[in-house]
Amino acid sequence: MAERFDRIWHNARLATMRSDRTDLGEIERGLIAARDGRIVYAGVQSDFPVGADAVDRIDCAGRWITPGLVDCHTHLVFGGNRAHEFELRLKGASYEEIARAGGGIVSTVAATRKATEAELVAGALPRLDALIGEGATTVEIKSGYGLNAETEMRQLAAARSLARLRQVAIRTSFLGAHALPLEANGDKDGYIDLVCNEMLPAVAKAGLADAVDGFMEGIAFSGEQTARVFEAARALGLPVRLHADQLSNLGGAALAAKFSALSADHLEHTDEAGAVAMAKASTVAVLLPGAFYFIRETHKPPVELFRSHGVNMALATDCNPGSSPLTSLLLAMNMGATLFRMTVAECLTGVTREGARALGMLAETGTLEAGKWCDLAIWDIERPAELVYRIGFNPLHSRVWRAQ
Amino acid sequence: MAERFDRIWHNARLATMRSDRTDLGEIERGLIAARDGRIVYAGVQSDFPVGADAVDRIDCAGRWITPGLVDCHTHLVFGGNRAHEFELRLKGASYEEIARAGGGIVSTVAATRKATEAELVAGALPRLDALIGEGATTVEIKSGYGLNAETEMRQLAAARSLARLRQVAIRTSFLGAHALPLEANGDKDGYIDLVCNEMLPAVAKAGLADAVDGFMEGIAFSGEQTARVFEAARALGLPVRLHADQLSNLGGAALAAKFSALSADHLEHTDEAGAVAMAKASTVAVLLPGAFYFIRETHKPPVELFRSHGVNMALATDCNPGSSPLTSLLLAMNMGATLFRMTVAECLTGVTREGARALGMLAETGTLEAGKWCDLAIWDIERPAELVYRIGFNPLHSRVWRAQ
Ligand SMILES: [Zn+2]
Ligand SMILES: [Zn+2]
Repeated sequence: MAERFDRIWHNARLATMRSDRTDLGEIERGLIAARDGRIVYAGVQSDFPVGADAVDRIDCAGRWITPGLVDCHTHLVFGGNRAHEFELRLKGASYEEIARAGGGIVSTVAATRKATEAELVAGALPRLDALIGEGATTVEIKSGYGLNAETEMRQLAAARSLARLRQVAIRTSFLGAHALPLEANGDKDGYIDLVCNEMLPAVAKAGLADAVDGFMEGIAFSGEQTARVFEAARALGLPVRLHADQLSNLGGAALAAKFSALSADHLEHTDEAGAVAMAKASTVAVLLPGAFYFIRETHKPPVELFRSHGVNMALATDCNPGSSPLTSLLLAMNMGATLFRMTVAECLTGVTREGARALGMLAETGTLEAGKWCDLAIWDIERPAELVYRIGFNPLHSRVWRAQ
Repeated sequence: MAERFDRIWHNARLATMRSDRTDLGEIERGLIAARDGRIVYAGVQSDFPVGADAVDRIDCAGRWITPGLVDCHTHLVFGGNRAHEFELRLKGASYEEIARAGGGIVSTVAATRKATEAELVAGALPRLDALIGEGATTVEIKSGYGLNAETEMRQLAAARSLARLRQVAIRTSFLGAHALPLEANGDKDGYIDLVCNEMLPAVAKAGLADAVDGFMEGIAFSGEQTARVFEAARALGLPVRLHADQLSNLGGAALAAKFSALSADHLEHTDEAGAVAMAKASTVAVLLPGAFYFIRETHKPPVELFRSHGVNMALATDCNPGSSPLTSLLLAMNMGATLFRMTVAECLTGVTREGARALGMLAETGTLEAGKWCDLAIWDIERPAELVYRIGFNPLHSRVWRAQ
C-alpha cells in the first residue's frame, strides 16, 4: 500500500483521549496522518504503512499532541466591562451602590444592546484569541445579554462572525432565558412567552443557534418556565442545555435529563437523583470552576456522584463578565483539579472529548481518531499532567486546525 | 529650557504607584522621559518642558503604563518536575505512596543536586519568560533545594546567570534553612550549624546572595534556630526575610520584625502582635495566594490587621514545584483580590512598589518617579482594575527595561 496524505506528524506522543482506552489513551511513539482536513490515521508509528507518503512531514521531536481543546460553555460576546464593579466590591460597596454605579448584569445588557455587531466582534476577539492561544479549536458562545430578539440575534451573529475571522469552530446557544429584562417589570411568564413565541422562532429561522440554553434558578427562571422553553426548542428541532443547580437544588439536572439535554452546567447543588437521571439520559455534566472560584462558592459539585453513576464530565471557562472573567482552559483544568478534586484524566478529557460531547460534536472532534477533523494542540511538556498542574503557564508549541 | 532625552513616552495614562498620592497615583494625560536608562520625568504631559527633545518619541495612544512588575518571592530555580506527584495525589495516593513514587521536596532536592548549572538555568528560563511576558522587570529567586553548600551555590549562580540571559533584574536570597536534608538524620541544630558556619559564609564570600531567608515552622525550623541564622546574616551584613506563620502561629512575623527583616512572607496565621511588630520595623508583609490556593488553605492572612496597623503588603507568585507552580503575577493579583479580599490598589501596589520595598529596591524601581530605573509595563486596558479582575488573560502591550 502506498497511500498519500496531505500531512503527517511523526515522532510524537499522543494523548488520544479515546473512550475505548484507559486514562488518556496515550501512545508513546505515535503518528497522525491527515487528508482533506481530517485525521486518517492516529496511532502507533510503527504500525503506519511503510510506503505511505505525504506532502508535509512534521517531526514533533517527542512533543505531546492532544486533540484541539474545546471550550463548551462561554458567554464570550458581550458589551461593556465590569472591572470597575469588581473594584468597587473589593472596596466594600454594597450591591445597591454597585447598581447605582451602573454595575450588575443590567449594565452588561445595556452595553450589549448599545453595541453594534462590529463592536461586539471587536470586544470578543481578544478573549477568543486568548483561548486559541492555548490550543482551543472549538468554542461555544451563548447569547443572553440582549434579552430582546434584535440584540440576541446580533449577539449570535457576532459569534458566528468570529468563525470567519479566526480558524476555529464556533457553536452558538440561544440563551434568551438568561435573566429577566427590566422592561418585563417582573413578569417572568410574559417574558418566557416572548422567548418561546417570538425570539426563539426568529433565531431558529435565521439559523443562528445550534442549541437552546436556559438558566433555572431562584434568581432566574422556574422549572415550569424552563420546560416551556425546552418544549419550544424541541418543536423547532433544536437540542437543549441548562444552567442548573448552581446556587440551589431546584431539580435542574433532572429536568435537563428529562429533555435529553446535551448538558447540564454548573451543578454545584445537584443530588443523587439528578446524577442518576443525567447518566440515564447521557447528559454531560459541564463543570465551571471559574465561576465557583470567582464568586467564592463553597459547595462543590458532586464529582464523586457523577463518577460513580457514570455521568460524563466536561470542564469549561464559563467566560462572562459578571461571575467568571476567565479566558483560559488551562486554568479551568487546574481549578477543576484543585477546587473540585477532579483527576488529571478527568480534567484533560473534560476540555477535549467531553467538551465535544457536550456540544453534540463527538463525531467531529474531541479525540485523536480517524474520521475526525484534524484539530490538534502540540505541547512542550514532559507529561500531560503538566497541563493541569501548572498555574498561569502556557506550554503550547503549536496549534493545528483542520490539518493546517 | 531645551533638555534632551533618550526616549519619551507620551499620550499615556500613568499609574505611578507613588506613595505620596492616593490609590494608584493615576495621571490621565501623562508622559515619561528617560535618559541613561533612568526616568527623568514622569508626570503630567502639559507640565513637561515645551522645548524638550528626545531621540525616540513613542506615542502610547492612551495606553496605561505601570511600573515594571516585581515578583519579590520565587523559588524559580530547581531541578525535576512534580506534575506526576500532583496526578497521583488527585488519584487518592497517600503521602507515603507519593514518597515511594519519588515525590515531595526530597525529590526536588535530589533532582536539583543532580542538575548542572546549565540545566538549572534551562529549566528556569521558561518560567522566567512567563513572568517577563506579563511585564515583570525584577524577580527575586531563592536557593533552598540544594541544602548543601555546593548545590545552594549552584542554584544561586544559576539565578544570577538568568540576569545575563534576559533583560531583567534578579535578586537572590540564600535559603539554606528551607528544610532538613535527609543526610542530617533529623539533627536540625547540627544542620543550622552547617548553614551558619559553612554554607552562609561561603555564599556571602562568593557574593551570591542579596539576602538571607528562612522557613520557621513546625515542619521546618524553630524560632531559636531561625534567630541563629539571622545573627549569622547580620554579622555578614546581609538583610533577612522569613517564611513565617504559614501553617501555624509560632511568632515568625514578630521574630522577623525583631531582626528588621525586609519582609515576612505567607503570614496566614500572624496575630495582631505580629502585625504591630512588623509595622514598627517597616517589615513588608509578602502575601502568597498561589500557595494558599494550591494547598487549599482556609485560614486567610489578616489583611485587615495589616491594613489597620499600616503594614505594607506585597504580593508574589511563590513559584515553586511543591506548593505553588504559579508563574503569573496577574493571577497572583486576582487571587489576592478574590481569596484575600485585597483591594485593586493593594494588589497593584503589591506587585510594584511594595514588591520593590520587600527587596530593599524602592530607590531603584517599583514606582514611576524621576531617578528610578525606567522599567515599564504598557497595557492594552481601559482601566488598571482590569489587570486584577481578569483571569488568565494577558493584556501586556509592551515591556520596557532600563528605557529599552
Ligand atoms: Zn454560563
Ligand atoms: Zn517560598
